[in-house]
Amino acid sequence: MRFGRIATPEGMTFAVIDEAATTARAIAGTPFTDPEFTGKEWKLEEVRLLAPTLPSKIVAVGRNYADHVKEVFQQTADDLPPTIFIKPPTAVVGPGAPIRIPKFATRVEFEGELALVIGVPCKNVKADQWKSVVRGVTIINDVSSRDLQFSDGQWARAKGMDTFAPLGPWIETDLERFNFDSLPIKAHLTHEGETATKQDSNSDQMIKSIGEIVEWVSESFTLLPGDVIATGSPAGTAEMVPGDVIEIEIPGIGSLTNPVARA
Amino acid sequence: MRFGRIATPEGMTFAVIDEAATTARAIAGTPFTDPEFTGKEWKLEEVRLLAPTLPSKIVAVGRNYADHVKEVFQQTADDLPPTIFIKPPTAVVGPGAPIRIPKFATRVEFEGELALVIGVPCKNVKADQWKSVVRGVTIINDVSSRDLQFSDGQWARAKGMDTFAPLGPWIETDLERFNFDSLPIKAHLTHEGETATKQDSNSDQMIKSIGEIVEWVSESFTLLPGDVIATGSPAGTAEMVPGDVIEIEIPGIGSLTNPVARA
Repeated sequence: MRFGRIATPEGMTFAVIDEAATTARAIAGTPFTDPEFTGKEWKLEEVRLLAPTLPSKIVAVGRNYADHVKEVFQQTADDLPPTIFIKPPTAVVGPGAPIRIPKFATRVEFEGELALVIGVPCKNVKADQWKSVVRGVTIINDVSSRDLQFSDGQWARAKGMDTFAPLGPWIETDLERFNFDSLPIKAHLTHEGETATKQDSNSDQMIKSIGEIVEWVSESFTLLPGDVIATGSPAGTAEMVPGDVIEIEIPGIGSLTNPVARA
Repeated sequence: MRFGRIATPEGMTFAVIDEAATTARAIAGTPFTDPEFTGKEWKLEEVRLLAPTLPSKIVAVGRNYADHVKEVFQQTADDLPPTIFIKPPTAVVGPGAPIRIPKFATRVEFEGELALVIGVPCKNVKADQWKSVVRGVTIINDVSSRDLQFSDGQWARAKGMDTFAPLGPWIETDLERFNFDSLPIKAHLTHEGETATKQDSNSDQMIKSIGEIVEWVSESFTLLPGDVIATGSPAGTAEMVPGDVIEIEIPGIGSLTNPVARA
């Protein structure tokens, strides 16, 4: 099932989106329980999709694809293993919302990633139990100012500033439709009217598997419903400038598309 | 005025604490508006103080005291300037609540710091306007696992895990009672029955002033009511082990005391 959050002429609501992505049926509660339909229904083109969850935190894994470690850090993953960082809730924007780049954030790049949305409060989850705590999956663009990332050392500003966590388009709860050991991830950048596929990789390049990530993260942090785990970016990240449009695509979920603007 | 959050036999509530710290008068709302008293009142010894705010994020400044930069990093602040990192909401505990150290977090140290509690949604605040967005001040213990801090590179685990952000005892809103350019900060560690003063410093050692911090942080992050800015730790940080008790003291606010336990 696909849970989205939508802005309608009557206000904001969570909704179930159909497989063809043509209709949104409003639900009374949140995506974390069985849906209770209100009876309200819209064509998807009549509403605006918002970020499908309001996380209390985004726990993100950095350096989880060997090819991306090499392109950004010029080192191997043996020397620079995966690490954990936090993106705050104020970084989140939904599909179609602009990524706004302030003047001091130079060389801002996209990073297309699979995101897990937590479904129940949990701690110390074992790797093979990860599906029991994940409500569904979505896409995150882990927008990163490379210059700030290196000058600050800590990645909070480079990756955590306002609008640097586009999330969506919705939460896909049917985990059995995916082969998480071999899931394609693509990023398409449109610059001056020309679209080029910049990331074209696969989760088979992950250093830590999804189960290992959930175990690792949850031994330090209590996870709450709606919290997001970003599983890391493959190679192919590249700079975006105001006027560009960036689309992250994961088959079985869909596409997350955002324009880039000056803050 | 001092705003606390308390657990009473009738539930949790925000309250106004008197100057002598003997009584707690319940309020109907939050600390972010003028208090509306409910008429309920407790002796402070009959209730339990909780963390006085539930932040959506803690934005923390690292390496903001030259003497602390030298003791931790063996470098000067010229080479390693202040940096920004995030502690998530799940790290917060209140006064008296145990700091719980898991087995994989080795060499866990206290860091006593002045904390600002944001009062209004804000962005791009100028340094000289900082008091207009701060509801009050409190104390934070920026608990840090030094080994994880260096092995991970990113500080999210070392400083962000559950219970690693003790906060309190209350929010003091009368900013005019403080000289923020010369505010003593102390940490007293009790180990095997012996209490020693480990930190005995002063905000006059800050590299970035409070106003500069608010300007710097708020150009990247929208700040929301209840959010916390941790202004950095002076020198004197030291290891805590299970069984210890750590007290951070700032005159004009009070003391934040937490026992240390095994997770």
